[in-house]
Amino acid sequence: MKPTLHLFDEIGTVCTMQGAAEKKGRRVTKADLGLIHDGAMVTDEGRLIWIGKAAELPNELKPLRDHSKMCTRLKGRAVIPGLIECHTHLIYAGNRTTEFERRLQGESYQSIAASGGGILATVLATRAANLDELIEMGQVRANRFLRQGVTTLEIKSGYGLTVDSELKILRAAGNIKGPRIVRTFLGAHAIPKEALSADHYLDQLILEAFPMIKNEGLAERVDIFIERGYFSVDQGRRYLRAARDLGFQLAVHADQLTSSGGAALAVELKAHSAEHLLQIDDQEINLLAASDVTCVLLPTSDLYMDCQFPPARSLLDAGARVAVATDMNPGTSPSQDLALSGLLARLKMQMSWPEVMAAYTVGAAHALGLEREIGSLTVGRVCDFCVIDGHLEELFLEAGRMPIRSVYRSGVEIPIS
Amino acid sequence: MKPTLHLFDEIGTVCTMQGAAEKKGRRVTKADLGLIHDGAMVTDEGRLIWIGKAAELPNELKPLRDHSKMCTRLKGRAVIPGLIECHTHLIYAGNRTTEFERRLQGESYQSIAASGGGILATVLATRAANLDELIEMGQVRANRFLRQGVTTLEIKSGYGLTVDSELKILRAAGNIKGPRIVRTFLGAHAIPKEALSADHYLDQLILEAFPMIKNEGLAERVDIFIERGYFSVDQGRRYLRAARDLGFQLAVHADQLTSSGGAALAVELKAHSAEHLLQIDDQEINLLAASDVTCVLLPTSDLYMDCQFPPARSLLDAGARVAVATDMNPGTSPSQDLALSGLLARLKMQMSWPEVMAAYTVGAAHALGLEREIGSLTVGRVCDFCVIDGHLEELFLEAGRMPIRSVYRSGVEIPIS
Repeated sequence: MKPTLHLFDEIGTVCTMQGAAEKKGRRVTKADLGLIHDGAMVTDEGRLIWIGKAAELPNELKPLRDHSKMCTRLKGRAVIPGLIECHTHLIYAGNRTTEFERRLQGESYQSIAASGGGILATVLATRAANLDELIEMGQVRANRFLRQGVTTLEIKSGYGLTVDSELKILRAAGNIKGPRIVRTFLGAHAIPKEALSADHYLDQLILEAFPMIKNEGLAERVDIFIERGYFSVDQGRRYLRAARDLGFQLAVHADQLTSSGGAALAVELKAHSAEHLLQIDDQEINLLAASDVTCVLLPTSDLYMDCQFPPARSLLDAGARVAVATDMNPGTSPSQDLALSGLLARLKMQMSWPEVMAAYTVGAAHALGLEREIGSLTVGRVCDFCVIDGHLEELFLEAGRMPIRSVYRSGVEIPIS
Repeated sequence: MKPTLHLFDEIGTVCTMQGAAEKKGRRVTKADLGLIHDGAMVTDEGRLIWIGKAAELPNELKPLRDHSKMCTRLKGRAVIPGLIECHTHLIYAGNRTTEFERRLQGESYQSIAASGGGILATVLATRAANLDELIEMGQVRANRFLRQGVTTLEIKSGYGLTVDSELKILRAAGNIKGPRIVRTFLGAHAIPKEALSADHYLDQLILEAFPMIKNEGLAERVDIFIERGYFSVDQGRRYLRAARDLGFQLAVHADQLTSSGGAALAVELKAHSAEHLLQIDDQEINLLAASDVTCVLLPTSDLYMDCQFPPARSLLDAGARVAVATDMNPGTSPSQDLALSGLLARLKMQMSWPEVMAAYTVGAAHALGLEREIGSLTVGRVCDFCVIDGHLEELFLEAGRMPIRSVYRSGVEIPIS
């Protein structure tokens, strides 16, 4: 036997998500879960080379069962593809916990900012932190995601707002161990106080930051916050085109607080994702559905902001591809609970359980441009998967708990305790 | 030195909740947190005999610092009273995870029940389980509460609905290790299918179950579900009076789905607690505020039921005592996340952070009739406490995570990993 082979045998149920992957994450139903009962999987160097019913394992692979080091018996437990958390602001320093109470007690965001709070507090603390400190804090948070079954984790910069500090954040993100990391440059998260103008700051990012990020391979994606008081559609168009010209994938923080035109811009520029999307209308829903843009919905931040939820049902029914993520950040979404984001998608956004499963696997893979590599348990793809502790349906049900027993990346178990 | 003494030294901040305790959990403000910076505590046989600033430790207690076995240094970390989760249905068997999806997809509760789902599914599985199985499943759940800082845990029966099976559940609850357990007999959770009538069933509980529970010391409290289709106010009055005559404390599931009169009954009978309280009006709010009944609010189940939240602000402003709990149960509130229940209290019920802290300590202690023993770090009381991993304000903020580093019951650390 080829020594790089490995058999995962005696799987109770494999939720492959193959149907959802074939449909590219659109109009997903229960049938698209691609369930295989009494299943088995075989990997070669971490890629899936065979998946099916254990009883149908090809003869030439059967000898794997006799090699204890080449065979892992999952004892009837269920398996799902590794989960993909596709929108986080994981790397930051400082603490803004007291602000939440001040906001709830009616203090304005302006007043909090004037007293040194708000995003500025995070920016100053993040600028002051060194690379090792950022890695250490980020690793603690990444471990929390990993324990919930996250094998691919997107991390945005955006709390530096200078070229140097933004690059420091991306370098810190690149040093996070455990999940596969996808990095997004969000230097255009806000206009720094020091900037002469929004355009001047964007020029600096385009001319100085983009080439360095590209040369050093510090990020795969570029994102911008299109919103009143932040960056306009015109500024976003210029900025994202420059990023696209350098070969970056594009993402857009779109239509979160006001109808900002971000979703239409994402479609126009063939961005991989448009994120938040609370304020979109039917026209934009149809635009998104007809495009290849993945709609990344972030209900946990909507809960914390105590606002409406995005029109997920309309997007899904129109045929759009949807992903769901936590938006984990220290200000507006200080939670890493995948169970809650999935639960809110079900309760508040009328998403079915198969749709939530697809959103956290196939949908998120598309958002990150990794749909040929991850998101489903399909022959030829990387074999990232989680073993479930209990029933499949306990996923995205119990707020505060994802029933994950063990996590494998490229067929290798990653310690999660 | 007396060998039973122990010093907890070098505490960054002790959140004693002494002010809240003195005010018996009413009209709690920030000042009532009773914060002591650079603090220390001394216990004797698990009871607090001294608490204050470390620099003011009395001379006769100072030698404790020289005995490594009699002194625990908390290295600047913050400490809070052990948390009290005062409303759970922890002991049950079976799995109802698929039901949630069916309900969300529009299937009626009646249809689910007709196909063997709903509470009946849990009742049948719980009746079929033996004592050891119930203990084992319950212990897993209790450990999850313990890791979140819960040192006192209320457990209701109610998924047996026969005298024998209800007693089995109470016995299982009594075998749970870790947190201090308070048991509530909720045989009157629903009318069992086999019952000739609601009154006949209540007679059976009063005549058969009550004496056995009392003789064996299987529960401290008796609770009943006052609701249309369950038990009426008149039935509740008769039942709870009989319980009170035997010396049980009283609790009432009141005004959850409809305005059932349960809150007024709780006040009339001087119950320790009235729970849920979604459907109460100003008159009932004033009745509760003028009484010694603790209002136990359960926002997690309200989130799962996708209904309104109880009028916490009106209750608090009227001077009522409030507790908050998860209502953890397999049907309508399948979550054990204290962070979420506290967060929802803040976001959806306009409770301040000090009010949530009081609700989960002093308020819950009153609900369980244990206010002289637990709920605050006060000389003479049992020294149950948690050491915080980070800032105090991270409590009840990050859904899915309570920043608890270690947990002490009666001054002794309980392993939580």
